[in-house]
Amino acid sequence: MSNKHSATLLVSCPDSQGLVAAIANFLLTYNANILHADQHQDAVENLFLMRIQWDLHGFSLPMESFAAAFAPIAEKHNMSWEVSLSSRKPRMAIFVSKYEHCLVDLLHRWRIGELDCDIPLIVSNHEDCRGLAEFHGIPYHVISVNKDNKEQAEAAQWALLEAAEVDLIVLARYMQVLSHKFVERYPHCVINIHHSFLPAFDGAKPYHRAFARGVKLIGATSHYVTEILDDGPIIEQEVMRISHRDDVDDLIQKGRDLERVVLSRAVRWHLENRILAYNNKTVIFD
Amino acid sequence: MSNKHSATLLVSCPDSQGLVAAIANFLLTYNANILHADQHQDAVENLFLMRIQWDLHGFSLPMESFAAAFAPIAEKHNMSWEVSLSSRKPRMAIFVSKYEHCLVDLLHRWRIGELDCDIPLIVSNHEDCRGLAEFHGIPYHVISVNKDNKEQAEAAQWALLEAAEVDLIVLARYMQVLSHKFVERYPHCVINIHHSFLPAFDGAKPYHRAFARGVKLIGATSHYVTEILDDGPIIEQEVMRISHRDDVDDLIQKGRDLERVVLSRAVRWHLENRILAYNNKTVIFD
Amino acid sequence: MSNKHSATLLVSCPDSQGLVAAIANFLLTYNANILHADQHQDAVENLFLMRIQWDLHGFSLPMESFAAAFAPIAEKHNMSWEVSLSSRKPRMAIFVSKYEHCLVDLLHRWRIGELDCDIPLIVSNHEDCRGLAEFHGIPYHVISVNKDNKEQAEAAQWALLEAAEVDLIVLARYMQVLSHKFVERYPHCVINIHHSFLPAFDGAKPYHRAFARGVKLIGATSHYVTEILDDGPIIEQEVMRISHRDDVDDLIQKGRDLERVVLSRAVRWHLENRILAYNNKTVIFD
Amino acid sequence: MSNKHSATLLVSCPDSQGLVAAIANFLLTYNANILHADQHQDAVENLFLMRIQWDLHGFSLPMESFAAAFAPIAEKHNMSWEVSLSSRKPRMAIFVSKYEHCLVDLLHRWRIGELDCDIPLIVSNHEDCRGLAEFHGIPYHVISVNKDNKEQAEAAQWALLEAAEVDLIVLARYMQVLSHKFVERYPHCVINIHHSFLPAFDGAKPYHRAFARGVKLIGATSHYVTEILDDGPIIEQEVMRISHRDDVDDLIQKGRDLERVVLSRAVRWHLENRILAYNNKTVIFD
Repeated sequence: MSNKHSATLLVSCPDSQGLVAAIANFLLTYNANILHADQHQDAVENLFLMRIQWDLHGFSLPMESFAAAFAPIAEKHNMSWEVSLSSRKPRMAIFVSKYEHCLVDLLHRWRIGELDCDIPLIVSNHEDCRGLAEFHGIPYHVISVNKDNKEQAEAAQWALLEAAEVDLIVLARYMQVLSHKFVERYPHCVINIHHSFLPAFDGAKPYHRAFARGVKLIGATSHYVTEILDDGPIIEQEVMRISHRDDVDDLIQKGRDLERVVLSRAVRWHLENRILAYNNKTVIFD
Repeated sequence: MSNKHSATLLVSCPDSQGLVAAIANFLLTYNANILHADQHQDAVENLFLMRIQWDLHGFSLPMESFAAAFAPIAEKHNMSWEVSLSSRKPRMAIFVSKYEHCLVDLLHRWRIGELDCDIPLIVSNHEDCRGLAEFHGIPYHVISVNKDNKEQAEAAQWALLEAAEVDLIVLARYMQVLSHKFVERYPHCVINIHHSFLPAFDGAKPYHRAFARGVKLIGATSHYVTEILDDGPIIEQEVMRISHRDDVDDLIQKGRDLERVVLSRAVRWHLENRILAYNNKTVIFD
Repeated sequence: MSNKHSATLLVSCPDSQGLVAAIANFLLTYNANILHADQHQDAVENLFLMRIQWDLHGFSLPMESFAAAFAPIAEKHNMSWEVSLSSRKPRMAIFVSKYEHCLVDLLHRWRIGELDCDIPLIVSNHEDCRGLAEFHGIPYHVISVNKDNKEQAEAAQWALLEAAEVDLIVLARYMQVLSHKFVERYPHCVINIHHSFLPAFDGAKPYHRAFARGVKLIGATSHYVTEILDDGPIIEQEVMRISHRDDVDDLIQKGRDLERVVLSRAVRWHLENRILAYNNKTVIFD
Repeated sequence: MSNKHSATLLVSCPDSQGLVAAIANFLLTYNANILHADQHQDAVENLFLMRIQWDLHGFSLPMESFAAAFAPIAEKHNMSWEVSLSSRKPRMAIFVSKYEHCLVDLLHRWRIGELDCDIPLIVSNHEDCRGLAEFHGIPYHVISVNKDNKEQAEAAQWALLEAAEVDLIVLARYMQVLSHKFVERYPHCVINIHHSFLPAFDGAKPYHRAFARGVKLIGATSHYVTEILDDGPIIEQEVMRISHRDDVDDLIQKGRDLERVVLSRAVRWHLENRILAYNNKTVIFD
């Protein structure tokens, strides 16, 4: 697959005439074979957003010179941009507590190649998932967290993440709230799964509250973590029908299937550089 | 179809041994051919709920004697119950403002026999839908509502509803909030369609707020109207996928398809005596 | 809305370097403000497909000169292309037999502006829907069709379509099979709704066959009509859950909701120039 | 949970008056606390089907005497019936080839208690999934199958299944077709997952054929295995939306999520005695 040696450029900037032409001409100058291109214009915010992926085979600009060569265009149009190479696998940490269903799912998808990344470590506040981690050959670090040691615990987590040069943190039903300080370090790099259809039932015990309210569908939401709990940019959501025959335990069981699918899609899209977040929303270039 | 001459019994009572046997034996005594039966036990609330429909052909108990004959069983088990005859069509009023999509849908379903009821009147606070009502041969009453005349307007509406002996009121995108006094008169007999996935985005402008929050699915909810706005027992919900390519107008357009389907299902289930409401929830015997 | 004076270009051609740049540069030359752009590359077929819509306000090339100005690019890259102006409404004919649910739906969407087209005529082989057509002020032509008069009937239909300068024909549950000769005249301009999830249950009585097979979901499919029955390029599909409690009549009733939504989406996408058909498939630029 | 000591009775028989009363009275005689009851009448086939589950705590009939005590009722009404005790876990064998996604899913659900059964063995024609089986502590047997040794291979499989006293065989993407002789031994006790929305794309390479046909949704189907390939009673189906941006590999990847959910639901329903199969269809008492 030629995708194996490709580059992906994500761009966002104020909308104006000539943006597509400017980027297309730049790439053409160096003989880029474009594999996929997608763009979006937000008319309300006057924003232009683009994702463009090209084959590096035959591309005549060395990627170490890309930034310098692209700078004039980026400056002229006031672009935020980021380029990723398929040859460099993103490094992903997984945080988990006791519920293993999301972890099982992520590790399985990783093992069969559905998630193209390295997983240098799994962090947990419990021992429960160690066997699973070891079966997959991934270091498993237990750092207990309680009311009194939160700061030290996060410092220890941070040290591990730094040492492992992690690009992405996935909270796979990790039941501790991260501090503002922690979250600020990883803007749009921490993905959480919340077990409700946000903004309904944010916070604790969403399945119990969904049951109490008598909703006819339950949901799950993956989102980037920000300082406000369950409020970050939504990446993906899915729902499932329930009925009066379902009690809270049934909701929890059915919800697990939602959580896994919704979290793994978000993770894959992030790893494939398909997500642009702005204004507390996301654009998914699928 | 034998359904044309059938009776439907809805029962709710504290759960105890022998309830199914008691009801089944009672009906068997009079040679009832049971067409459909469904029951539900709410273990948390210790409630037993049942819907049972039987053919009146060959049923040896005259329906005018049903209440007296069934009373001993009902009293023994502390039952709430209601029996409906397929030969008596429910009488439904529709309230509408300017958006016609739900009205068009209800009238079409009624005309082709999908909604088995009489529609003695349509009430509106605007003239817009008169043509549609007249095309279907249904009296159309315009009663303006504003801040100052709400009480008189509701009195006029109520007089119409009383005169028409209405059993069910459907708010098909009727944009006025009904008073507590009005709602109290029709417990579990007023069905509303709210254009969001409740409890998310209750209140005004749900599509605008869904757009602002960046959700990936929009929804619609039909529910019985209670004193608290958008808080009554949910009857049906449905969602639809949206993307960053959809602006608020797209959400409104896509949402119309949800609203129609979700409202019409609720109305049909109500007309077919499939709904039991308790504890601010519903059981749907489908 | 600036969309009201916009142009939309649909292009398909063999994939090669520089296509996006060529089209973007061409439009930039004439100061086009691009409103939406979307492209797709079919790696297997080595095809490039693009839809690009721009504001005509400020566009310095008169549209009557577009073809001549674009010709060199089109020829160089061997493009098939078509440009549509928002100022010219497409002209749509609807064919219907006795079932009115799709017709009601299309006419409602048209009346509220969801389908941006003119409807110069409705053609039927029965009188049933005349009232509906007249309520909407649309001429209604009944042309009986039977085994013996098919050729004459189609000649009469064709004469009506020609006189009305129709661009699109929608078969809204029209129960007659069109001849090859008829279909050939309107390549990718006749949209049909089939009441199954194609390719399952093509041909007659799909709901009866779905019931007999015991499927757990029923579907509907909108597609362009080709010479082979129920085999043309699929535009849209949707499904709905059923259960053992549903008999054939329930399937037919539930299926109506699918048919309406699936047909109307296809019609809207066609009217908005969002569909490119090739290789008996469609690309939907949404 | 009282469910832990419950009995479940599945009954099917010709429909007639007094069936519900007969069963309810029988259970009441022995003080059964009914936990769940559901019944279905197939008016076309004149069949009555029932599932009834009761608490064994306080039930005064010893279960070893159930058959004798129930026999008069069963004979009078010509019933087929089966009673299962929650205290006896069903024994399930899993067959798998190389694709592990369904196996991973089933084993995870089993480990967290979602599938209430014993898994005495996994049978495969390849070594690939041995590690996974061993991690879960389940014996893994490799029996190679080719054109020439099919009969001996099945004999070996059968010996293993007999020794393990297996009640249910799940084909979790097992890529060999079982012989008629083999299937006949396990009527309605072999569950397969087919990676299409049956009856569309039965047989080989369904994702490739779905791609070639240009469908807009892909599906998966779990069903009981019968002598005719991909033709047995359908237990569950689910679909997922795809677009022109998805190639065959994307369909395969997306389809894995369908296959897992659809297979696991079927297995759970079977283990919970929720399925009654007749006339090449299933009733699911959920």
